[in-house]
Amino acid sequence: MSRRDHAALRQTMRIRFDFNNAMASSIGDAHGITEAALASLSERVARGHSEIARRRQAGELDWMKLPSSLNVASEIEAYVDSIKGRFDNFVVLGIGGSALGNIALSTALNPPYYNLLSPEQRGGRPRLFVLDNVDPDQFSGFLRVVDPRRTLFNVITKSGTTAETMAQYLIVRDMLVKALGDSHRDHIVTTTDAKSGELRKIIEVEEYRTFVIPGTVGGRFSVLSPVGLISAAITGIDIQELLAGAAFGDEMTSEPDLRRNPAYANAAIHYLGYEAGRTLSVMMPYSQALKDVADWYCQLWAESLGKRVDLDGRIVNVGPTPIKALGVTDQHSQVQLYAEGRFDKIVNFIAVDRFHHDVVIPPGYPPSPGVNYLGGHTLNELMDVERQGTAVALSDTGRPSVTFHLPAVNAFTVGQLMFILETQTAMTGELLHINAFDQPGVEAGKIAAYALMGRSGYEKRAAEISASRKSSPAYII
Amino acid sequence: MSRRDHAALRQTMRIRFDFNNAMASSIGDAHGITEAALASLSERVARGHSEIARRRQAGELDWMKLPSSLNVASEIEAYVDSIKGRFDNFVVLGIGGSALGNIALSTALNPPYYNLLSPEQRGGRPRLFVLDNVDPDQFSGFLRVVDPRRTLFNVITKSGTTAETMAQYLIVRDMLVKALGDSHRDHIVTTTDAKSGELRKIIEVEEYRTFVIPGTVGGRFSVLSPVGLISAAITGIDIQELLAGAAFGDEMTSEPDLRRNPAYANAAIHYLGYEAGRTLSVMMPYSQALKDVADWYCQLWAESLGKRVDLDGRIVNVGPTPIKALGVTDQHSQVQLYAEGRFDKIVNFIAVDRFHHDVVIPPGYPPSPGVNYLGGHTLNELMDVERQGTAVALSDTGRPSVTFHLPAVNAFTVGQLMFILETQTAMTGELLHINAFDQPGVEAGKIAAYALMGRSGYEKRAAEISASRKSSPAYII
Repeated sequence: MSRRDHAALRQTMRIRFDFNNAMASSIGDAHGITEAALASLSERVARGHSEIARRRQAGELDWMKLPSSLNVASEIEAYVDSIKGRFDNFVVLGIGGSALGNIALSTALNPPYYNLLSPEQRGGRPRLFVLDNVDPDQFSGFLRVVDPRRTLFNVITKSGTTAETMAQYLIVRDMLVKALGDSHRDHIVTTTDAKSGELRKIIEVEEYRTFVIPGTVGGRFSVLSPVGLISAAITGIDIQELLAGAAFGDEMTSEPDLRRNPAYANAAIHYLGYEAGRTLSVMMPYSQALKDVADWYCQLWAESLGKRVDLDGRIVNVGPTPIKALGVTDQHSQVQLYAEGRFDKIVNFIAVDRFHHDVVIPPGYPPSPGVNYLGGHTLNELMDVERQGTAVALSDTGRPSVTFHLPAVNAFTVGQLMFILETQTAMTGELLHINAFDQPGVEAGKIAAYALMGRSGYEKRAAEISASRKSSPAYII
Repeated sequence: MSRRDHAALRQTMRIRFDFNNAMASSIGDAHGITEAALASLSERVARGHSEIARRRQAGELDWMKLPSSLNVASEIEAYVDSIKGRFDNFVVLGIGGSALGNIALSTALNPPYYNLLSPEQRGGRPRLFVLDNVDPDQFSGFLRVVDPRRTLFNVITKSGTTAETMAQYLIVRDMLVKALGDSHRDHIVTTTDAKSGELRKIIEVEEYRTFVIPGTVGGRFSVLSPVGLISAAITGIDIQELLAGAAFGDEMTSEPDLRRNPAYANAAIHYLGYEAGRTLSVMMPYSQALKDVADWYCQLWAESLGKRVDLDGRIVNVGPTPIKALGVTDQHSQVQLYAEGRFDKIVNFIAVDRFHHDVVIPPGYPPSPGVNYLGGHTLNELMDVERQGTAVALSDTGRPSVTFHLPAVNAFTVGQLMFILETQTAMTGELLHINAFDQPGVEAGKIAAYALMGRSGYEKRAAEISASRKSSPAYII
């Protein structure tokens, strides 16, 4: 898509953020945010804005530069062109930030049931598998449905040491070598740090084709880097349009005034909510396509904002908990709790103005007058009134919600949405006065796992764990 | 499977429930449960036990009778036999409790990537689709991958009025009539209440084959009724073994002493936790197969326990929030928050002693000494040490967890687990002194949606909604 088309998209495909239903004027003083509370945050938001700008300038937040990495996108497109038609399957070996973005983009932007389409329906593009677990039954099952000789594996790990990914790599490499000999190298493409890490060492020996994850781009902020772009491009997603959307999202969130910046407004709403006990952030798209964007958001929010210490080193054990939900599906699962349970949630709806298809419900079915009110309407209308009905029901009981309105689901709006949510996360980190870009809390579990696995160098920890375990048979039923 | 085999399964396939890591003796007094606290609940648990027994006797809890509905299972098996080989696809039209159990059973007990297997690999059984949303793009996409002439649709709704399901029904019926004329009736099987509801009226006119949801079985407790059993049987799941497992789960949870009853012990742990601010219940299976059992649990827990009023009519706005997670995947997404964030969670691990497959990681890969510690181990070991490592890391920071140990994932253990979790939910409802079996909070949203849809009879509500909406353009960015 040309730059000119991107200019048109900025007019027609701008996301609107509506936070009326979070405000006291809509849902009452008891649970709504007052004008005064919002005003009281202005200065801190402005300070946070300066700090984010400073860190961006200093090269600490390179995920903010990804929307303008057009040369990387071109390189990926050229690579995808060069292997066109050669593979029936594209498989991501990655976990967490090296998987969730890929899944989110594919669910959002590829056709529904993508892997079940015929090769013609997929335009000759490969099926996509993301193996983000090490479940042995899933892995064995996977081998029943793909022929490795027709499969390209994308090993993705920033550090190059991720145990799950490297275990998968060792298994897959062995299998490919047995099936293909030396040409196995054509079936592996890697995505890792430019210089450091175990995978980098392997690449030097094996001479795999490789793409780089820029230095200060952390896993959960990497979807717009080659981490997310290769699988997107190879399945037919317009990655230039995705980046253009993200660049527009950057522009939309460059405004220091929280009242004119959707990312900062929602950060402020979540921060004020958190301080008032609304510690859960529900992400609930009314769109099957955006289902996994909610999952991606859950990592972004949880790992960035769940922190033991603040920037001054004080123990704070802070962290709003993200929850993924799906409209209308979860109206029949979670909304009972959202409407009647504790006042501990902020619901983020995502509404889609226009779907790609209209599906009409046939009118006039005599056996059932009780369902005939549906006839003549569309599923599109049904989705929309159900979302509105849920928002009304929540508002009526004093439950705050906000709504992101997407004109449509396409690469431009998805890129935009993701960048807005990333910036929102950065600002919420500023307001909570924590480092949103590290993840010290996952280390302890990894080390314990190394110790339990008998890895050399971890004998002391293994002994400690063994000594500290207090397991009483009385507590096992 | 014969009854004799079931007797053997009771020996080898008994689920163990380990709650050491929820107790003060393991994780400390600050966040662990003391012996005294547990003891103080004994009497209330015993009272709850009597109340559950009384209601069961009175026919108010017929979900507890489902494990012994062997004649229903036989009827379903005969039906499945009678249509063998006639359909390539089996499609559930249902939502919430009419979908989540079906999905959970299929993911747990059918092979991974079931719908991608060849017809031979599936033993000639149909693919399974569960359409639990009314997203028009998903619905259109669905029609690209299934041929309705080779498809059997299972319309599932207890009330027969569920808007989403009935809208789908009207569309599907219309499509089938156009493609097949009168014989369209052979492509629809219904599951609904024995006597009442719109769908029942339709069945009388159309003479569809139908299965009954017993009177007092609510949607979220219906997985072991025809709601869940038809899709299970037709895809090859042993539903007799499933019911035998559930019957064993019933037996395991018939003990009034919470120290000998896993369902009551976990209800007590969650109740005590809730009172102490641990209001989130994370369900985290270390098994890809059990991923959607976590989703099913989220509905069970949320709709049953999220309540505005207690049994005495007092406004309590009570409700622990369930969260689904997946090991090891979510170690790279959520565990940072679980380990460092607020002390507001109880993590329910599910461990699998033995997977169906062993996958060995090849040893001795020279280019990378740093990953070679993995070589010679199995993915099975890796799954297990990662779960243990996470449990240790959580315990070390005072975060409570419990673990359900499944000897293996099969119909017997899954039936057992589901029944234990259902009984746990009933007991938690008793301890919270609420009605765990209604869902008044979803009505308001439905009524608002009807009003917004322009349904006749809801004009007054439509006018109210319109009048009460206070939308300020200042809060739309």
